[in-house]
Amino acid sequence: MELAIANVQGMTAIAVGLILGLGALGTAIGFGLLGGRFLEGAARQPEMVPMLQVKMFIVAGLLDAVTMIGVGLALFFTFANPFLGAVTG
Amino acid sequence: MELAIANVQGMTAIAVGLILGLGALGTAIGFGLLGGRFLEGAARQPEMVPMLQVKMFIVAGLLDAVTMIGVGLALFFTFANPFLGAVTG
Amino acid sequence: MELAIANVQGMTAIAVGLILGLGALGTAIGFGLLGGRFLEGAARQPEMVPMLQVKMFIVAGLLDAVTMIGVGLALFFTFANPFLGAVTG
Amino acid sequence: MELAIANVQGMTAIAVGLILGLGALGTAIGFGLLGGRFLEGAARQPEMVPMLQVKMFIVAGLLDAVTMIGVGLALFFTFANPFLGAVTG
Amino acid sequence: MELAIANVQGMTAIAVGLILGLGALGTAIGFGLLGGRFLEGAARQPEMVPMLQVKMFIVAGLLDAVTMIGVGLALFFTFANPFLGAVTG
Amino acid sequence: MELAIANVQGMTAIAVGLILGLGALGTAIGFGLLGGRFLEGAARQPEMVPMLQVKMFIVAGLLDAVTMIGVGLALFFTFANPFLGAVTG
Amino acid sequence: MELAIANVQGMTAIAVGLILGLGALGTAIGFGLLGGRFLEGAARQPEMVPMLQVKMFIVAGLLDAVTMIGVGLALFFTFANPFLGAVTG
Amino acid sequence: MELAIANVQGMTAIAVGLILGLGALGTAIGFGLLGGRFLEGAARQPEMVPMLQVKMFIVAGLLDAVTMIGVGLALFFTFANPFLGAVTG
Amino acid sequence: MELAIANVQGMTAIAVGLILGLGALGTAIGFGLLGGRFLEGAARQPEMVPMLQVKMFIVAGLLDAVTMIGVGLALFFTFANPFLGAVTG
Amino acid sequence: MELAIANVQGMTAIAVGLILGLGALGTAIGFGLLGGRFLEGAARQPEMVPMLQVKMFIVAGLLDAVTMIGVGLALFFTFANPFLGAVTG
Amino acid sequence: MELAIANVQGMTAIAVGLILGLGALGTAIGFGLLGGRFLEGAARQPEMVPMLQVKMFIVAGLLDAVTMIGVGLALFFTFANPFLGAVTG
Amino acid sequence: MELAIANVQGMTAIAVGLILGLGALGTAIGFGLLGGRFLEGAARQPEMVPMLQVKMFIVAGLLDAVTMIGVGLALFFTFANPFLGAVTG
Amino acid sequence: MELAIANVQGMTAIAVGLILGLGALGTAIGFGLLGGRFLEGAARQPEMVPMLQVKMFIVAGLLDAVTMIGVGLALFFTFANPFLGAVTG
Amino acid sequence: MELAIANVQGMTAIAVGLILGLGALGTAIGFGLLGGRFLEGAARQPEMVPMLQVKMFIVAGLLDAVTMIGVGLALFFTFANPFLGAVTG
Repeated sequence: MELAIANVQGMTAIAVGLILGLGALGTAIGFGLLGGRFLEGAARQPEMVPMLQVKMFIVAGLLDAVTMIGVGLALFFTFANPFLGAVTG
Repeated sequence: MELAIANVQGMTAIAVGLILGLGALGTAIGFGLLGGRFLEGAARQPEMVPMLQVKMFIVAGLLDAVTMIGVGLALFFTFANPFLGAVTG
Repeated sequence: MELAIANVQGMTAIAVGLILGLGALGTAIGFGLLGGRFLEGAARQPEMVPMLQVKMFIVAGLLDAVTMIGVGLALFFTFANPFLGAVTG
Repeated sequence: MELAIANVQGMTAIAVGLILGLGALGTAIGFGLLGGRFLEGAARQPEMVPMLQVKMFIVAGLLDAVTMIGVGLALFFTFANPFLGAVTG
Repeated sequence: MELAIANVQGMTAIAVGLILGLGALGTAIGFGLLGGRFLEGAARQPEMVPMLQVKMFIVAGLLDAVTMIGVGLALFFTFANPFLGAVTG
Repeated sequence: MELAIANVQGMTAIAVGLILGLGALGTAIGFGLLGGRFLEGAARQPEMVPMLQVKMFIVAGLLDAVTMIGVGLALFFTFANPFLGAVTG
Repeated sequence: MELAIANVQGMTAIAVGLILGLGALGTAIGFGLLGGRFLEGAARQPEMVPMLQVKMFIVAGLLDAVTMIGVGLALFFTFANPFLGAVTG
Repeated sequence: MELAIANVQGMTAIAVGLILGLGALGTAIGFGLLGGRFLEGAARQPEMVPMLQVKMFIVAGLLDAVTMIGVGLALFFTFANPFLGAVTG
Repeated sequence: MELAIANVQGMTAIAVGLILGLGALGTAIGFGLLGGRFLEGAARQPEMVPMLQVKMFIVAGLLDAVTMIGVGLALFFTFANPFLGAVTG
Repeated sequence: MELAIANVQGMTAIAVGLILGLGALGTAIGFGLLGGRFLEGAARQPEMVPMLQVKMFIVAGLLDAVTMIGVGLALFFTFANPFLGAVTG
Repeated sequence: MELAIANVQGMTAIAVGLILGLGALGTAIGFGLLGGRFLEGAARQPEMVPMLQVKMFIVAGLLDAVTMIGVGLALFFTFANPFLGAVTG
Repeated sequence: MELAIANVQGMTAIAVGLILGLGALGTAIGFGLLGGRFLEGAARQPEMVPMLQVKMFIVAGLLDAVTMIGVGLALFFTFANPFLGAVTG
Repeated sequence: MELAIANVQGMTAIAVGLILGLGALGTAIGFGLLGGRFLEGAARQPEMVPMLQVKMFIVAGLLDAVTMIGVGLALFFTFANPFLGAVTG
Repeated sequence: MELAIANVQGMTAIAVGLILGLGALGTAIGFGLLGGRFLEGAARQPEMVPMLQVKMFIVAGLLDAVTMIGVGLALFFTFANPFLGAVTG
């Protein structure tokens, strides 16, 4: 029984590592690309910075969306592992 | 019995990690490319921002579509693993 | 018997993860490339936006086609695993 | 007997995952490249859009051809696994 | 006996997956490159579209040739596995 | 019992390594891209440095967000491993 | 005896998959590069299309040569596996 | 008991290696990109070097942040391995 | 005895797959690069096509040389495996 | 006991190899990028070499920082392996 | 005895595959780069073709040298495996 | 006892191989980038060669630093393996 | 005894394959880059070909040096394996 | 005893292969980059060839340094394996 639970828990830990690691890698590179364009536009046309910033936040919300869902699921996995119910139940 | 269930659950956890990790990586890079073009266009022609934003949301919907289906399936896998029925049934 | 079923189910879960993960990665990058060109064209020639948008949807349909078939098959695999019939039958 | 069938079925599931995953990845990137060029041409010379669209569909048919054969085979594998006959027969 | 047959069949399934997956990936990227050039040429010189299209089909035939042989062999492998004769014979 | 705990702890350690390693890699490359654009803009238009710096910090906050969540979770995993409760409990 | 034959046959199947998969990938990318240059040249100087086409076929013959030898060998391997003689003889 | 502890310690060593190796790789490439831009700006506008240097240090602080947290955690892991408490406790 | 022979034959089959697969991949990409330059030169200066073609064949001979030796060795391996003599002799 | 210690020591050796190998790879590429810019700037504006050199050393200090910490930890691991205390203690 | 010989022979076959496969890949790409430059130079300055061709052959000799040594060694390995003497002697 | 020592020594040999192999790869590419810039600057402004050479040596010292530390540690590992003390002691 | 010798000989064969395969790959790509520049320079300034050729040979000697040492060592390994003395002695 | 020695010797052989293979790969690519720049500079300013050649040799010495140390260590490993002393001693 213990070994079966440990197997599921270990696999879930690796899955959480994959979600958070790949998600953070993608988000950082994505914001590096997006923010560079934002700073470039802001430096060239400073009178349009407020409008550009609002737009960037909209894009940022979309860019982060899937990663944030992944973060939420990863948190759920760690505190109340739903894969464990079928083994212990 | 327990070991068979643990095997299925562990494999499902890895599959969920793959779906969410690769999906988040792709979405972040995709929006980085798309949003950079949007900010560039918005900075150059500010009078067309509302039209561009609507268009960007349409593309964003398409860009997110498959990932969102994947997120939905991943959620389903974690809360009511459909692969388990054949083992426990 | 149970171990044989668990083996098939675990392998199917990994296959579903591959289909959805790689499909979402490809779709997101593809729409990032396609949508960037669409926004660029829309910003340069706003009078042609309706025509361009219709064309983009046609391309989007083609771009999504194989992924959507994959999503459909992945859903089928999870709810009524066709690989299981030969083992349990 | 059951373990031999499960082995073949599991391997077939992974093969289906490879066919659909790699095929969807390739198709999405290919249409991203092709559709971007189509939208670019359509924005520059709108009077030639019908001709370009017909041509694009011809290319699309060729681009999708191998993937579609792969999808057909993958469907066949899942519903009537031809690799199983030699084991069960 | 059954395990030996299952071993050959499983390996053949993976080989079929490799042939179809890599072939579809290559064909899609190849036609993305070729078709983009074709649409570009067609948009610039519409009077030469029929000639260009004939030429593109000739190249398409060459581009698809090896993949199609691979598809044919993959079909043969699935319906009448030639690797099995030496084991069952 | 001890071996099951050690299995979970070892897997968690690898997961923490993945989260921190990939996260640090992504953050460093992302800030390299973003900061280079910032210094470029600051050198060209020094009168706009305060505004640009504020904007860069906003982007930096978004860029770091997911990684910081990952760092927080990694810290939590190391000091009070939530995957262990199901095994020891 | 059967297991030794199955081992050789399985390895040969994987080898055939490698030959056809990598060969198809290379041929498709190679013709994508070559055919794009051909269409470009044909669109620019239509009076020279017959000469260019003859030249392209010569290059195509060279480009396909090794792959075709590989296809021939792969066919030979599948229908009369020469690696089997030493085991069964 | 000893083998369980050795298992956890070995896995932790690999995790520390991953954190420090990937972190150093990312930091070096990131500062290579950032510092190159800084030297370029300094050579072009020497009167603005003090301002640029201050800005570069701010970016450097952000760039190093996650890696430094990783270094801190790695040090903690090596001197007082928190993953060991659950095994030895 | 049979297992030792099967081991050598299986390894040789994989080696043949590596030689032919990598060789075909390299040759196809190499001729794609070389032939593209040839067609480009032929389209620009048609009066020099015979000279260029002779030169291209010389380069083609060099480009194919190692691959052809590999093909010859691969054929030799399949029909009269020289690695087998030491085992069966 | 000896085998447990050897396991920890072997894993630590691999970790040291990862830290030093990846760190040296990153540092060399980073200084190649940074130093190339420095020589370029020095050749163009020789009157500013002293200032540029001071700045380059500041960047070099930041670039090397994480790698140097890794080197220090690697030295510590080799001479007084802190992972060993829990096994031998 | 037979198993030891088969082990050495199998490993040698893989080594031959690596030498010939990687060598053919490198040579084909190298000549693709070199020959493209040669054809370009020949098309631009036809009066210098004989000189260029002689120079190209000199470079070709150097380019092929290591691969040819590898081919010679690979032939030696297959016909009179020098690694076998220590086992059979 | 002997097997435990052999395990540590084998792992250390692989670690030394990683340190020297990756270090040499990085150093060679780094000096290729740096030296190319140096020769370029020297060819353009020969009167500044002595100054540029001094600067290049300073950068070279920084570029080599980490690799040299790695070489020193690798030498230490081979002649007086510090990981062995805990096993033999 | 025989198995220990076979183990060393098999590993040595793989090492020889790595040295020759990677060396040939690097040399071919390196001469492709170097020779392309040489032909380019020779086509532009034919009066300087003798000088350039001498210089190219000097660079070629440096480029080949490490690979040639590797080839020499590989030959030594195959004919008088120095790793074998400690096992057979 | 023999198996422990064979284990160390086999691992050392692989390490030597890694050092020489990666080193030769890096050196060849590095000299390809460096020598191309040298020939370019020599063709443009032939009066400065002696100075450039001296400088190139200085860079070449630095470029080769780490690889040469690796070659020396690899030679040492093969003729008097220092990792063996602890096992046989």
